Amino acid sequence: MRGRLVPTLAALRPIWLRRCSRTTLTLRTFSNQIIKSPSLLSLDLADSWSSTSKQSHSSSIQENSNNWTAKIIDGKEIAEGIRSRIASEVSRMKELIGQVPGLAVVLVGQRRDSETYVRNKTIASEEVGIKFKMTVFPENCTECEVCNALCRFNEDPSIHGILVQLPLPQHLDEGKILNVISLEKDVDGFHPLNIGNLAMQGMEPLFVPCTPKGCIELLLQSGVEIMGKKAVVIGRSNIVGLPTSLLLQRHHATVTVLHAFTKNPEKIAREADILVSAAGVPNLVRGSWVKPGAVIVDVGTNPIEDWRSEHGYRLIGDVCFKEATRIASAITPVPGGVGPMTVAMLLYNTLESAKRTFNFTC
Amino acid sequence: MRGRLVPTLAALRPIWLRRCSRTTLTLRTFSNQIIKSPSLLSLDLADSWSSTSKQSHSSSIQENSNNWTAKIIDGKEIAEGIRSRIASEVSRMKELIGQVPGLAVVLVGQRRDSETYVRNKTIASEEVGIKFKMTVFPENCTECEVCNALCRFNEDPSIHGILVQLPLPQHLDEGKILNVISLEKDVDGFHPLNIGNLAMQGMEPLFVPCTPKGCIELLLQSGVEIMGKKAVVIGRSNIVGLPTSLLLQRHHATVTVLHAFTKNPEKIAREADILVSAAGVPNLVRGSWVKPGAVIVDVGTNPIEDWRSEHGYRLIGDVCFKEATRIASAITPVPGGVGPMTVAMLLYNTLESAKRTFNFTC
Repeated sequence: MRGRLVPTLAALRPIWLRRCSRTTLTLRTFSNQIIKSPSLLSLDLADSWSSTSKQSHSSSIQENSNNWTAKIIDGKEIAEGIRSRIASEVSRMKELIGQVPGLAVVLVGQRRDSETYVRNKTIASEEVGIKFKMTVFPENCTECEVCNALCRFNEDPSIHGILVQLPLPQHLDEGKILNVISLEKDVDGFHPLNIGNLAMQGMEPLFVPCTPKGCIELLLQSGVEIMGKKAVVIGRSNIVGLPTSLLLQRHHATVTVLHAFTKNPEKIAREADILVSAAGVPNLVRGSWVKPGAVIVDVGTNPIEDWRSEHGYRLIGDVCFKEATRIASAITPVPGGVGPMTVAMLLYNTLESAKRTFNFTC
Repeated sequence: MRGRLVPTLAALRPIWLRRCSRTTLTLRTFSNQIIKSPSLLSLDLADSWSSTSKQSHSSSIQENSNNWTAKIIDGKEIAEGIRSRIASEVSRMKELIGQVPGLAVVLVGQRRDSETYVRNKTIASEEVGIKFKMTVFPENCTECEVCNALCRFNEDPSIHGILVQLPLPQHLDEGKILNVISLEKDVDGFHPLNIGNLAMQGMEPLFVPCTPKGCIELLLQSGVEIMGKKAVVIGRSNIVGLPTSLLLQRHHATVTVLHAFTKNPEKIAREADILVSAAGVPNLVRGSWVKPGAVIVDVGTNPIEDWRSEHGYRLIGDVCFKEATRIASAITPVPGGVGPMTVAMLLYNTLESAKRTFNFTC
């Protein structure tokens, strides 16, 4: 390009697009792989800026009719498949080297949603043969008590993954507590070094945060192409919004992050081919926020009271499901969408950590 | 919001906007401060999602006429002011504790643009009283030689900032080499931990990368409000595009990152209130890419041959300056825009590092 000062048409042509999209990135078959998500380093295609003819691709989604009944992306089923492959691998590990992965969870307080998540993790771990340890603290515990528990897990050679169930009570310094977790056991992937490595091209984090990884896996396993798509992420939390946006960008989507200071978020959301909502606001995303044919990943898990439900509440998403299904081409439900994937990815990260520790490849 | 399932209007109202925008974020006066950029932690306002009435702010920029002659943002002048304040502080440091900050640069090869940058850094350091050390290696040097030089600077107590002039020759592993630099002396801020801390709310990196920090400083010193604005960053390099997008988001802009896989970048760029181009492609951004009244920061420094010039080449930006000045409300020129700011921010980071080392506050 150097020396050619005025391009014929002021637009960029993604010249790598055709060459790579169906080979490197969206693997249609995956025999021995537990998940479809490729290694992040394999995604690091060089940005080759070009400025030839203007390209106005329509995504395959857009080319279709406007009258959708969205495909429901069954996170429960996809997660089940992943868990079953993890179970096989854990069993093989036990057989070959007499070891199993170990996961430790620290829970503070009695938030009912947190308790539900931890219960799910316990059951899921045990089902796949991962050893599970848990320490529970009362709401009014001290930072020091939590940190001591984490240090013990750091030193425990039978533990390969540690997580603190978030959110923590206000009086505890979340950042300080998470920093105590050994980087090698940070299966949640929330350590700033992990996030930095996730953000930077040419680097690979030890762990990709579970929920963002689950979102990408849902897309890949549903045959949604990410490269070149406009993706909008609603929310920028350290846990979901931020790493999801970084991961989508690493998969070569054009990403916009919406937050509470965004003006006219509805308009921006309506331009998304892939819309990920992680705002934690029930029914924030109405039908008018959705582009016809878009793929929606609803990360919201908002508990609302429901006396008919077993636990006195039920979870609903950020997306007004009824409206969105009439406009989107595919959508993850709540519950049964991202939630089960988060747990599956946690088990996957724990297994990967144990494999690294034991230098086990199978 | 919990329990209120269907918001009256599907839009978010940035309720913090009015309260904070003119106080915390865009400081109109700054007496003793060297730069206007506030501490990143001070920017961490909680996202308070709301879904009341639809808000369709027009930025003050948009409200104006479409016939612009863009204000030229004079990076040279702004940088000069910053350097002069740094010089005062270095001089005070010398007077009070008999110490000065020290900066070390490693240069590999003979790229003429790299040589120019290093020359500028030498002159600028000496002018403000920062001690400057440099090690130059030939193009065909080994990774080991470069790493050894960096280790020596890591251990040198008179050095508070170390940088490797990028890009490095292809045969050298950039990531590996940059990782050798001690985190406390990484004044370029390229360490993944720094980038992770920049990305995450509630965290603060030891150093914000110089060019992105320079871009934000140019905007702040030119009275451009960032919060709530649509910002588009063209390019996603680890050095400029990525950290600039993270920094803009931390300042509560709604950020979209364009890259070579983006479809129809022209259309997306044209929606930006703040357009930052860091693609490294001369004249990529034509007039048709610019929203009337937008503010443009041109980070491109593309050398093109020019026999009339002293060094046989001159630098031009990513933006077609002539076309953009008729549409934008403000624009940084190349040269004389971001370039001088990068150097000023490097000196600033080096001074801050020395102040931390000596526990010096003035």
